[in-house]
Amino acid sequence: MTQSKSPIAFIGLGAMGFGMATNLVREGYQVTGFDKFQPILDRFRHAGGFTATTPAEAVAGKKFCVCMVATKEQAQDVLLDGKEPAIKAFPEGAVLFLCSTVPPGYVKGLERELKERNRSDIALIDCPVSGGAGRAADGTLSIMAGASETSIEKGLPILRAMSDSNKLYIIKGGIGAGSNMKMIHQVLAANQILSACEAMGLATRLNLDLAQTGQAIVKSDGWSWMFENRLPRMLDPDFGPLASAVTIILKDTSIITSEARQVKFQTPMTSTAEQAYFVGLGKGFGPDDDSSLVRLYVEGKEKLGSVKTSVKDEETKLALVINLLRGIHLCAAAEAITFGHYVGLDLEQVLEICVNAAGGSRMLRQEGQSIVDTLNSRSASNSSNSPNSQVVLHQIARQLQDAVDEAQTLKMPLFLGAQSLNLIHRSLRIAGEGASRLSGSNIISQWV
Amino acid sequence: MTQSKSPIAFIGLGAMGFGMATNLVREGYQVTGFDKFQPILDRFRHAGGFTATTPAEAVAGKKFCVCMVATKEQAQDVLLDGKEPAIKAFPEGAVLFLCSTVPPGYVKGLERELKERNRSDIALIDCPVSGGAGRAADGTLSIMAGASETSIEKGLPILRAMSDSNKLYIIKGGIGAGSNMKMIHQVLAANQILSACEAMGLATRLNLDLAQTGQAIVKSDGWSWMFENRLPRMLDPDFGPLASAVTIILKDTSIITSEARQVKFQTPMTSTAEQAYFVGLGKGFGPDDDSSLVRLYVEGKEKLGSVKTSVKDEETKLALVINLLRGIHLCAAAEAITFGHYVGLDLEQVLEICVNAAGGSRMLRQEGQSIVDTLNSRSASNSSNSPNSQVVLHQIARQLQDAVDEAQTLKMPLFLGAQSLNLIHRSLRIAGEGASRLSGSNIISQWV
Repeated sequence: MTQSKSPIAFIGLGAMGFGMATNLVREGYQVTGFDKFQPILDRFRHAGGFTATTPAEAVAGKKFCVCMVATKEQAQDVLLDGKEPAIKAFPEGAVLFLCSTVPPGYVKGLERELKERNRSDIALIDCPVSGGAGRAADGTLSIMAGASETSIEKGLPILRAMSDSNKLYIIKGGIGAGSNMKMIHQVLAANQILSACEAMGLATRLNLDLAQTGQAIVKSDGWSWMFENRLPRMLDPDFGPLASAVTIILKDTSIITSEARQVKFQTPMTSTAEQAYFVGLGKGFGPDDDSSLVRLYVEGKEKLGSVKTSVKDEETKLALVINLLRGIHLCAAAEAITFGHYVGLDLEQVLEICVNAAGGSRMLRQEGQSIVDTLNSRSASNSSNSPNSQVVLHQIARQLQDAVDEAQTLKMPLFLGAQSLNLIHRSLRIAGEGASRLSGSNIISQWV
Repeated sequence: MTQSKSPIAFIGLGAMGFGMATNLVREGYQVTGFDKFQPILDRFRHAGGFTATTPAEAVAGKKFCVCMVATKEQAQDVLLDGKEPAIKAFPEGAVLFLCSTVPPGYVKGLERELKERNRSDIALIDCPVSGGAGRAADGTLSIMAGASETSIEKGLPILRAMSDSNKLYIIKGGIGAGSNMKMIHQVLAANQILSACEAMGLATRLNLDLAQTGQAIVKSDGWSWMFENRLPRMLDPDFGPLASAVTIILKDTSIITSEARQVKFQTPMTSTAEQAYFVGLGKGFGPDDDSSLVRLYVEGKEKLGSVKTSVKDEETKLALVINLLRGIHLCAAAEAITFGHYVGLDLEQVLEICVNAAGGSRMLRQEGQSIVDTLNSRSASNSSNSPNSQVVLHQIARQLQDAVDEAQTLKMPLFLGAQSLNLIHRSLRIAGEGASRLSGSNIISQWV
């Protein structure tokens, strides 16, 4: 017996899917791929895979099916509603991994629909991934998997084959929980990709040396994983090489805000980021690397006439940029964790996953535990200070205000900075004059 | 005696100032104008005025001085710090009308500085105007005048000569109160100029007939004075003729947000509008009519690939646009009135002035009194319904959500719409599930 592992159907061989599927081939699985784009099927055969011409053909007789298409519409099409969909051919008791990033509401609906079609025998696993094409191909992705215990158990070998051993997270809460976790992580991603651009845009308008500024930020409390990751491309005149397009983060951003609207939660930070992404889209930046959105802040500078910074020394300028990031990242952390609380996720797990992933930031590390503790003790409404908090909200406000004032002088937008400052100011007002040393985590009063 | 009226010095002969000064000439005053721009002085002499080459020369021997420069920096320059400033030559007991729109903090500082320079004898009147160049030239401006009773009495003849008899408002609160009132009015102006563009942008992307849509909006609850006023220019392919440039409303917008930051009040709506204005500035739209900002919402449509509205019938589409405006205008009204409350203005007067001026909107008419009553009775924190309220907040939310959802489908920004919806959703959440019929004025919970 040379083939002891069960065969796998793999639907959706895009940048991520192709890497994941070929990794499974290398792991010794017989993988049958399907994609609507014909040339990719040829490439997949060269990489040792088998191919099918319809989703139904791909899944026929396979115990496992991984679905890694780009959108919920595509998922609905290949699984249920399109031409020769997978549901026509899933064998009894098949395990279906939905790895696409889709709205949590969608995957819950999918579970319902399988039931309605009398296919409750299918073990659905809600398991979005994170980590990019490189880690997909290496089989070292982060995976956030939610499902019934039985389903998880059935799917475990494949989940393990696709993920880093430290980064396979089983999310409590069943179907929808995996997608909720991914969504919460993307709140941080959506805000921190744009904050990186906003910060470097401000640095540009302040005539700072961008390479030096970037290095200084990486070492500072303004650090985020996204900033460090995007920095080389922000410094490249062509914003290359393309790693993740504006349209990709916009898609995830729209999932967050539309899910938030549906469940009546408010996401002022992510909504603001979304509008900025739409501005970028309208400028034709959609296919470009998201680091190129630094252009939203610097383009048209020459059209403003004489606009000069009032700040003279480099150290003060750098502090403005770092403090802008601190203020934004504090609010992003609060929005992510409070939204996670609202949708019922285990907050300790939210924090563990986000701190160590692409959503990480120094502010999240400093204030995340304090925010989680406050929410878990349900004392969010009182303004007592958490022992875990390391920053003082009044100070964050004062320093962020300097950055927002300066951007106004420079006549540049500061989408996230201005929004953050409004949220922080309101939070301070609600706490009242007496509360002179409010901790950073008190900002959650704007969401809970 | 052919000349019984006191001579007047007039500093700043721009679009507004020139009209105001020539109107005073027609009213029989001897007016001595000063402006840094030489050609305008020639024009002013042709219109029957006298001219001076410095501010000091202009004010020497004149009982009255009207200052109508564009910014606080210019005011500081001509009055106090520049070459041959007015302060060198003001006669004892002169009356100084500061008609420029400046930050309330600036005019209070000016009062202090006059005192410090031992010129408390000067009767300073804080009296910004509104109404545009046409009404300036007709002597039918709206004027919001704050000062001591004695100063107002001294200045009354000139204030009357410049204003419509129904629109000369004496604002309680002394120096700063006039500028505060103008600032509060401009909260509505800043939001409603942009909301007009946002609505017509959405209409464009929905492929509605723009002329018909515009007319329908004017008759609807989505009406605002700004919408009706900007409509002809929004429909003109060149957004002409130029009536008010983007830079003008941006200047006032920045006064609002920077004053708000200084007094630690938050203005989420106006801050959002400001970022959009900065985006327009970066695109080179600064000198263009502000109606041209409809371009922020429609440009780049061709770059999005196939993006189609899911809404079929024209009636539903029109409702989306109107409901977008209703939601934004409710939030703009709440931001304006609560900010007015915060800076200590008489809210009945705020409402009277704003409803009948360029800040007017149907939503302000419907909900303004209810908001004012709630604030005046200081019962803002409870969620009881005001008898004056005519709209149901849940309905506003549901309808606005449809517009925001649709804009997301169309991949267009909806700066104010998205911000409003977040504020309304949070307001509903704070009130709790039980509050099933919350009135529109409950939205103020987001500011107070």
